[in-house]
Amino acid sequence: MSEVYIVGSGETKYGELWDRSLREIAVEAGLKAVENAGIYSRDIQILYGSSSLSGTVNGQNDIGSLIADFSGLASNNIPAVRVEASSASGAAAVREAYLAIRSGEYDVAMVGGVEKMTDIYGSEMLDMMSTTLDREWEAFFGATPAALAAMSARKYMADFHVDKETLAMISVNDHENASKNPSAHYRNKLTLDAAMNSTMVADPLNIMDCSPISDGASALVLASDRYMKKNGMEGVRIQGSGIAQDYLALHSRASLYRLDSTAIAARKALDQAKVRNDDISFVELNDSYSIYGLLALEDLGFAKKGSAKDLVPDEISLRGRIPVNPSGGLKAKGNPMGATGVGQFVEAYLQFRGKAGERQIKDPEHAMLHNMAGSGSTSIVHIVGGD
Amino acid sequence: MSEVYIVGSGETKYGELWDRSLREIAVEAGLKAVENAGIYSRDIQILYGSSSLSGTVNGQNDIGSLIADFSGLASNNIPAVRVEASSASGAAAVREAYLAIRSGEYDVAMVGGVEKMTDIYGSEMLDMMSTTLDREWEAFFGATPAALAAMSARKYMADFHVDKETLAMISVNDHENASKNPSAHYRNKLTLDAAMNSTMVADPLNIMDCSPISDGASALVLASDRYMKKNGMEGVRIQGSGIAQDYLALHSRASLYRLDSTAIAARKALDQAKVRNDDISFVELNDSYSIYGLLALEDLGFAKKGSAKDLVPDEISLRGRIPVNPSGGLKAKGNPMGATGVGQFVEAYLQFRGKAGERQIKDPEHAMLHNMAGSGSTSIVHIVGGD
Repeated sequence: MSEVYIVGSGETKYGELWDRSLREIAVEAGLKAVENAGIYSRDIQILYGSSSLSGTVNGQNDIGSLIADFSGLASNNIPAVRVEASSASGAAAVREAYLAIRSGEYDVAMVGGVEKMTDIYGSEMLDMMSTTLDREWEAFFGATPAALAAMSARKYMADFHVDKETLAMISVNDHENASKNPSAHYRNKLTLDAAMNSTMVADPLNIMDCSPISDGASALVLASDRYMKKNGMEGVRIQGSGIAQDYLALHSRASLYRLDSTAIAARKALDQAKVRNDDISFVELNDSYSIYGLLALEDLGFAKKGSAKDLVPDEISLRGRIPVNPSGGLKAKGNPMGATGVGQFVEAYLQFRGKAGERQIKDPEHAMLHNMAGSGSTSIVHIVGGD
Repeated sequence: MSEVYIVGSGETKYGELWDRSLREIAVEAGLKAVENAGIYSRDIQILYGSSSLSGTVNGQNDIGSLIADFSGLASNNIPAVRVEASSASGAAAVREAYLAIRSGEYDVAMVGGVEKMTDIYGSEMLDMMSTTLDREWEAFFGATPAALAAMSARKYMADFHVDKETLAMISVNDHENASKNPSAHYRNKLTLDAAMNSTMVADPLNIMDCSPISDGASALVLASDRYMKKNGMEGVRIQGSGIAQDYLALHSRASLYRLDSTAIAARKALDQAKVRNDDISFVELNDSYSIYGLLALEDLGFAKKGSAKDLVPDEISLRGRIPVNPSGGLKAKGNPMGATGVGQFVEAYLQFRGKAGERQIKDPEHAMLHNMAGSGSTSIVHIVGGD
């Protein structure tokens, strides 16, 4: 089986890109990745597009075709499909590209993740975001992504004596790192005080516990070892890829604060990569809500259930034992859903190439990338780096 | 590389299933496929769900998770992702499952295609179907799928002296075959006269030239040769799989009536299968509009451009040289978008197992399955059968 390497990456700035269209930002990210990889667009053999809400928010389905067309890939008849798995769409698309190369069918694949979410506001947007929940048994009864996260947070805080400050520090850490990332949606630093006193969204989650509605696009070029060597390229290897499922609706799960899909996906990825948690130099994790940052740290294997608080804030900082979200994470780099998981790979690729500027991790060996759908229905974990 | 076999199939009746929900029909098809394959649900290692409009029409994205959950797969943490490529979503999902097995990562995959389209009517539905066109450059200016097909039809009819009766006969053939298919949306036979005198939709296309808005779900179990042999199972092999892309918008294409993506995908699939057009026992093709039936016959390699009329109606009938759509096709079996391409495999599997009842093709050797997005942006062609 072919080994699969990241050989190029590109992305737009994440943010409120009101003057730009879905296709425009997707193409910008894609062309940057092609240029970064030092290949021609025609060298790409297949495109995996990811977007969760383009059909719902932008009235545009079939975004694989859209991106292929406007990137100039369609003129070479390069095929394209869209992969969707809620907020895990990005990593799901990377994984499909990875499997396609592993199968021997392709040597070069592009992954393009994109979301244009700020065209719609308020309750209508909330309703659209809730299309990623269980529509009939959660959203229909008024549950929202934030409300579900708040339920998990309440139970978790009560059972493990975790205070609200600990949650807030996940966001403070994200903003600290994002202040060093030119691609980030929010580059302002966030004080604990400001986070604690921000508008309440769903008790105990303030707005500074919630990732923003972002526009943005991220893209990767992946290649087989054979292609990479033949063309004298360098890359960062995808060493492990794990995916697992839990019930779609939070109320069906075994626990309100155990991310079983994350735990299983992480174990698969680590086993495949033959790497232990101690070997991980940094982690990009899916903190769409601050509580998920704590839960993920535990279920990814960096702390026992209920004890992630011991890692916050020092150990998760850029200079800590296990730096979390050097990119700025979902809270501060931003969360353009279909792009988010792809953007984690972009960050990793920058880090391994020593191009991460002020937020550079020194000599990283392995990174863990965690992308998760909704409140934990699908989790996808990748290990990249090493050799 | 593993060889990939279809080892089980199941589907709901296609039609206006007003009393049933998206998840309900998806689960019915999936469980039937599992039972048909003679395995347990827990034997499945990954689920590929396909749906084009679930987020847009039903307010439910992440349908991979939805199906996994309500099929009982999530309780075994069996992962799920959704694949979307407009009306080619079904074959795109089959192809992802095929590549995943080829990669050696999985031995057993389920593909579940579903669409629940009849919950919404009239102009709102038309707008939602137009999310699969180029939103900004086609749909925004009032183009609809039927209008684009009508443009292709007009130019084609003028250039090659093809009459409206020839188009109508594609639909007449579909209805004839669907009358023998218990799963079909429409089981009534259609006379040429009734087709010609049906309501005009977009001149020259009458409503009987247009596939219906259907609900339905189709599912497959795919397995590696290794798994199949180890468990003493029998199956039908996927011998070739081709995918290719054209511009999303019809106005960007080289020709209004050349389906270049179809031609390239067909050639790839035939080459891989080491099969020629003459070896094909029957074809299931993507006649979402009758004109596409004629165009596809040509671009799939069964007739020169402009000469598919010579095959209609005799040669495409069940007893003809190249039977077209024994299932009833998109016009009469129905077109629940995400299910349609999966349903073509269900038909092929029934035919190869000799379970196609009155519409049984005698001793089929190879079948060609053609699924296409919109007006031809993405085409996916599979060859199944033989050994």
